[in-house]
Amino acid sequence: MRAKPQDPDFDTRVRNNFGEQTVMHTIGARLTQLEAGRAEIEMPTRDDLAQQNGYVHAGIVTTILDSGCGYAALSMWPAGSGVLSVEFKVNLLAPAKGEMIRVRAEVKRSGKRLTVCTADAFAVDGDKETICATMLATMICIEAKRS
Amino acid sequence: MRAKPQDPDFDTRVRNNFGEQTVMHTIGARLTQLEAGRAEIEMPTRDDLAQQNGYVHAGIVTTILDSGCGYAALSMWPAGSGVLSVEFKVNLLAPAKGEMIRVRAEVKRSGKRLTVCTADAFAVDGDKETICATMLATMICIEAKRS
Amino acid sequence: MRAKPQDPDFDTRVRNNFGEQTVMHTIGARLTQLEAGRAEIEMPTRDDLAQQNGYVHAGIVTTILDSGCGYAALSMWPAGSGVLSVEFKVNLLAPAKGEMIRVRAEVKRSGKRLTVCTADAFAVDGDKETICATMLATMICIEAKRS
Amino acid sequence: MRAKPQDPDFDTRVRNNFGEQTVMHTIGARLTQLEAGRAEIEMPTRDDLAQQNGYVHAGIVTTILDSGCGYAALSMWPAGSGVLSVEFKVNLLAPAKGEMIRVRAEVKRSGKRLTVCTADAFAVDGDKETICATMLATMICIEAKRS
Repeated sequence: MRAKPQDPDFDTRVRNNFGEQTVMHTIGARLTQLEAGRAEIEMPTRDDLAQQNGYVHAGIVTTILDSGCGYAALSMWPAGSGVLSVEFKVNLLAPAKGEMIRVRAEVKRSGKRLTVCTADAFAVDGDKETICATMLATMICIEAKRS
Repeated sequence: MRAKPQDPDFDTRVRNNFGEQTVMHTIGARLTQLEAGRAEIEMPTRDDLAQQNGYVHAGIVTTILDSGCGYAALSMWPAGSGVLSVEFKVNLLAPAKGEMIRVRAEVKRSGKRLTVCTADAFAVDGDKETICATMLATMICIEAKRS
Repeated sequence: MRAKPQDPDFDTRVRNNFGEQTVMHTIGARLTQLEAGRAEIEMPTRDDLAQQNGYVHAGIVTTILDSGCGYAALSMWPAGSGVLSVEFKVNLLAPAKGEMIRVRAEVKRSGKRLTVCTADAFAVDGDKETICATMLATMICIEAKRS
Repeated sequence: MRAKPQDPDFDTRVRNNFGEQTVMHTIGARLTQLEAGRAEIEMPTRDDLAQQNGYVHAGIVTTILDSGCGYAALSMWPAGSGVLSVEFKVNLLAPAKGEMIRVRAEVKRSGKRLTVCTADAFAVDGDKETICATMLATMICIEAKRS
């Protein structure tokens, strides 16, 4: 998906929105890359975000997959837009372990109201990335909340 | 789904497993009810688990939906079993706000290896419950990790 | 979901729409029950709709699950509405065999634009119903096509 | 996904399996390409497979998406393997119209028992392909039925 964003200043708008997601601070996730229709988020693994085997809980992996899809979608919409998740589906492919979880999300088809995104999550150890989960999601464009 | 559990002592086994999910402590979630094939989890809402509008992030709601489904499934399997999520799909239906999020999960079809579960999440304010999300999930039975 | 339909004449409108789905005739499916927010479809099994084991193909089961969800949603919307599927997820639970496949669909949450539905498909032999698949779907309300 | 297939004769095995899906003949679908981990299916559009707007019904598009994923998965498994769908999710992206529907499916992660696949469906008119649907699916490896 290489369509042109409708808002040339999408970068600031998306980063501000990310900054308002308090849960991103709580779990230690950062928006590490952003292009029109693409977002990357990284989160160092932590012992207090684990399921029963010590891996990062699928719901926490989903948290960053979902935000990745949301910001990939939001980057394509006009100024004044906000984003909400309509639905998503996640397949868990391997243990979410290692130094960090990295998510790469992108727009599959950008619509005026509904945008479909895909995202992969990788378990990262040094230079090695192992895909650990994948998401297919629908995002909806709403009016941004007023400040 | 009113099938009989294969392990009469499922309650202890499931509660111990829940206790090992450090993320449940981190987000303040508690396993409030457990029957064969059913689990209920409650989590008070908190400002540090929010998305950009101040509601609980969809990924955090997913975290307790997923654990609810996992423990509903695990309750039906034999002693020595563990559980992993294969995949899940979530539809977001309303803002996850109020005093707490309550999840009710149940087994839809219990299999030897794969079990399909459904779960609803409710935004709770006093006596009022509003459905805010729903999950359809596949769980896989594995050997429990050795202690 | 027991909300009141916005169009008291939803029955005729939905049945006409069903009649326009040529694929329903091709696979021999009939709309056997319709209430506000609920639809039932039946399709006798046939050898020419099979996958490699002789069961009804998952895609054909999906065809009637999807139409069931669509008509459950459409029954709740105002006159002049049409329906399209945004997305659906299906879990296959048992072989789709026997005399017929019966689908029961219902609205989970009816919205102005987006409505979330669930549907179960049953393999029917005489009086015996075995659940063989389940769907969680999002339908969107559009303007009906002009005739 | 460029992993090596475990059965060098996967081509014959997969094509025979496809030939046993009577529904593929009924809807006029053909397996037009097959590599290890990839399958392509084409189906000319037909008036008797339509939904109420005259487009190919989402369930029929799903039928070929599902078979595409199944054969992509089956191509990677050992001789003697069969395939069943565990679950799939489909997003509908544009009307399924034009001369034919073409599906390209590929393995995302091949496992011993469970394999995750993705597939895109395209509405084809002459040289022009428009993506009309996308699937994320889980397939399970079973013993092939005896002949």
